[in-house]
Amino acid sequence: MNGAESLLSSLIDAGVDVCFANPGTSEMQLVAAIDKIPGMRPILGLFEGVVSGAADGYGRMADKPAITLLHLGSGFSNSMANLHNAKRANTPIVNIIGDHATYHLPLDAPLTSDVPAHAALTTDWVRVCSSAQSMGADGVEAVAAAMDGRQANVIVPANYAWTEGGETASPLPTPKLKKVCDETIAAAADALRSGENSCLFLGGKALREEGLVAAKRIESATGARLIHEVFPARVQRGGGRPTIERLPYFGEVASETLKDIKHLVTVGTKAPVSFFAYPGKPGKLWPEECAVHGLATRQQDQIGALEALADYLDAPVIGSAEKPPLPEIPEGPMTAESVNAVVANLLPENAIVSDEGTTALAFSYHFFDSAAPHDWLALTGGAIGQGLPVAVGAAVACPDRKVVSLQSDGSAMYTNQSLWTMARENLDVCVVIYNNSSYAILNIELMRVGVTDPGERARSMLDLSNPTINWTGIAEGMGVKANRATSTEEFTALFEEAMANKGPRLIEVML
Amino acid sequence: MNGAESLLSSLIDAGVDVCFANPGTSEMQLVAAIDKIPGMRPILGLFEGVVSGAADGYGRMADKPAITLLHLGSGFSNSMANLHNAKRANTPIVNIIGDHATYHLPLDAPLTSDVPAHAALTTDWVRVCSSAQSMGADGVEAVAAAMDGRQANVIVPANYAWTEGGETASPLPTPKLKKVCDETIAAAADALRSGENSCLFLGGKALREEGLVAAKRIESATGARLIHEVFPARVQRGGGRPTIERLPYFGEVASETLKDIKHLVTVGTKAPVSFFAYPGKPGKLWPEECAVHGLATRQQDQIGALEALADYLDAPVIGSAEKPPLPEIPEGPMTAESVNAVVANLLPENAIVSDEGTTALAFSYHFFDSAAPHDWLALTGGAIGQGLPVAVGAAVACPDRKVVSLQSDGSAMYTNQSLWTMARENLDVCVVIYNNSSYAILNIELMRVGVTDPGERARSMLDLSNPTINWTGIAEGMGVKANRATSTEEFTALFEEAMANKGPRLIEVML
Repeated sequence: MNGAESLLSSLIDAGVDVCFANPGTSEMQLVAAIDKIPGMRPILGLFEGVVSGAADGYGRMADKPAITLLHLGSGFSNSMANLHNAKRANTPIVNIIGDHATYHLPLDAPLTSDVPAHAALTTDWVRVCSSAQSMGADGVEAVAAAMDGRQANVIVPANYAWTEGGETASPLPTPKLKKVCDETIAAAADALRSGENSCLFLGGKALREEGLVAAKRIESATGARLIHEVFPARVQRGGGRPTIERLPYFGEVASETLKDIKHLVTVGTKAPVSFFAYPGKPGKLWPEECAVHGLATRQQDQIGALEALADYLDAPVIGSAEKPPLPEIPEGPMTAESVNAVVANLLPENAIVSDEGTTALAFSYHFFDSAAPHDWLALTGGAIGQGLPVAVGAAVACPDRKVVSLQSDGSAMYTNQSLWTMARENLDVCVVIYNNSSYAILNIELMRVGVTDPGERARSMLDLSNPTINWTGIAEGMGVKANRATSTEEFTALFEEAMANKGPRLIEVML
Repeated sequence: MNGAESLLSSLIDAGVDVCFANPGTSEMQLVAAIDKIPGMRPILGLFEGVVSGAADGYGRMADKPAITLLHLGSGFSNSMANLHNAKRANTPIVNIIGDHATYHLPLDAPLTSDVPAHAALTTDWVRVCSSAQSMGADGVEAVAAAMDGRQANVIVPANYAWTEGGETASPLPTPKLKKVCDETIAAAADALRSGENSCLFLGGKALREEGLVAAKRIESATGARLIHEVFPARVQRGGGRPTIERLPYFGEVASETLKDIKHLVTVGTKAPVSFFAYPGKPGKLWPEECAVHGLATRQQDQIGALEALADYLDAPVIGSAEKPPLPEIPEGPMTAESVNAVVANLLPENAIVSDEGTTALAFSYHFFDSAAPHDWLALTGGAIGQGLPVAVGAAVACPDRKVVSLQSDGSAMYTNQSLWTMARENLDVCVVIYNNSSYAILNIELMRVGVTDPGERARSMLDLSNPTINWTGIAEGMGVKANRATSTEEFTALFEEAMANKGPRLIEVML
């Protein structure tokens, strides 16, 4: 077998069976290998940002990597924004990046660029294959690295891909979770029991159901507040699962939320900082006199640490909480909140929500505490264009679950090609586009830097009207059935119908 | 004035008056400065690949830089594929890349990444502003670097942008063209007059009308063949201008074209190499026994070198060549060739053609030798998604000229957001989409690596049908009037109408 075939067969043996792909000429041997060797499902994305975002959504839900297939430095650079988000989500991903034949690189052909330097920007795990013989081993090492919660970037020179002599490598054991030591548990317990105001600040895997259950036990034993990071990779919510606060986005509001905290214990995340700096405003969002205690990093066993801490505290096991009431659906003109209230009411059991709603979801997040059980996937790295691709990947990972993509319009434009993949793969995704014809968050940010009366030139950089995008036209152009809703009643009927039927669907909400 | 204002006013004083923008929070001070200081026209792109590609198209036509306004590492990475193309085109561009406040960087907020490392991937001219005071000077140095035919990447930490104390800097002189020395001219003359088969291999600025006129003189004096690089940044063609051969794309055909050449003299480009490597095929496309002589690099005065060589050879001035006859429009079902023949026949005077037609233009390039005078802009770096944004930028640079964007469907998907900017700015662009529902080039490449009978998995990665994209729907969704053509006659009527009227228009050709 050639190098490409040995890489493919090794990845498949290691349990990887989905490839989000946008190949080019230098990857044709890998395409041929996928064709020849059964076991890898190729899914085409018509832009690399779709490919990488889908791999992120897949990895968050499957807890194992998909591979991507990317074309040289330029193809990789198109994937980088969503790989940035995936890095911040600690999503397992194996990127297979084709490069020119090693002897072709010095000729500096038009598409030549420094692929290893590109690859190093999204992860510290970069492997340039050095022979056909080693490619199988490179593949399984990459899978093991990914299972440790990161991206593994494998660069495949074309000549090694087509050279014979490849060998299928045996899968490596999945890396063990790194346990938190007893001293750290005891120190966190002391802080939380100090009698001073304390907070358990949660992110990463701590937001899975078992982590939240343990956190609730700790809350009941110590009175610590439970707050989660602003943009979590995946939170298990609804259906009577433990509910916890979300830290507000804007720094000054977050600081206010935390102002009385004396002990902040972090699990699966770091102590919170402001998303951006603003003149005269603090970057660190916890009070100066507050002590920060790290219980578990994202590289450690976060759920295990919470459970060990709860046990150490002799915290009782808590029964199911009383589910808060479902949000009432406001009367009157349709707003983001009325739409979100409908979604929360009608969300099916075990749905997956891909949240890139930005301002449209700012005041509705808590609505979903009372919804049916679901997983909530947020924009982890702030690089917009994540929501639609993550919905693609989540739907591939969980074909029996409904995916609801709550999506702002400006961000949706970045990776609108995702809609085509939804149609091609007949994915069970319902996209709700909040069409407010604006980068609404930036209008707020412009005010925050002191421009309260922007002129035409400033407005022209933040406004998406003139022309107003018709998402129904775009979606149908890519093969996705779509409708516009102009009232809450219309939206309710359309969303009900979408929930009752499988397959891709887009509802454009005119705000 | 603050740093942002001093940067803006210095750029405006240096003659820069167009900003292709997709700003974020960290660039709000720059947005505010554009709002406050007259003289900079902001043009919003709804994805950074549109922004950078538009700056490329603008720079190729205006021979001076536009600025881009980009948001941190992730925004920059979205722009990189088209910046790669622009680098290969030696297009003057100044990228203004916002970054976090310097004191915010160590906090590792979610959108933090290594912006200077990103910026270094597209140019060797990277400047991180070090104070509000120096930003004006940074700006004018960047413009001078860009006028030398490259990208200048200026990274603006947010805190310097908002700090007072900025100073408007005076424009720097435009860098002088680097002359080619007499010995090099003489050596090239000796090679071309050797009596052996020789070829003048042209790229870069050599493909402007004056360069081509001088090249024709050299041809007549020496018998050298005139051939231009496969993917030129800008060729001035049509209307009786000198016509020269284009080197074929596929390596084996190009090698065959050059097989008898004993002396290859390069101007504004390097000796040709294969776009990709293939097993057992050569990467260098000139014969082993052929001597390569560099007359002028892209960093030198290419037109001056050609004129000096023609004078050195005592080559006579040539009158206008006889224009070849316009291509006949084939009868029968519509094909890419029948469409291209119509375009060549109806192309208006001084049109600009943005060529990302890939396989659809493979057999029609020479049709345009006989068209009205026009500029032809090709896909210089091979990173697809260039064509539509370059059309945007060219239309902004030359508002009185019709832009015709000849565009393959797969590549168009990459930066389809360009259509929205065409509508917003009412640009005089007619987009012709070749809808063959395929990455047609990759089907050929798969055959070339030996897969003659691809299975379902391979085909699924190269085929864009299921669903077939409806470009008319997508274009109308973004505010661009659009029609489908299913016969040559229909296309002719639609294209005639588009040429007779100003404003954005898309014609989807169903192949």
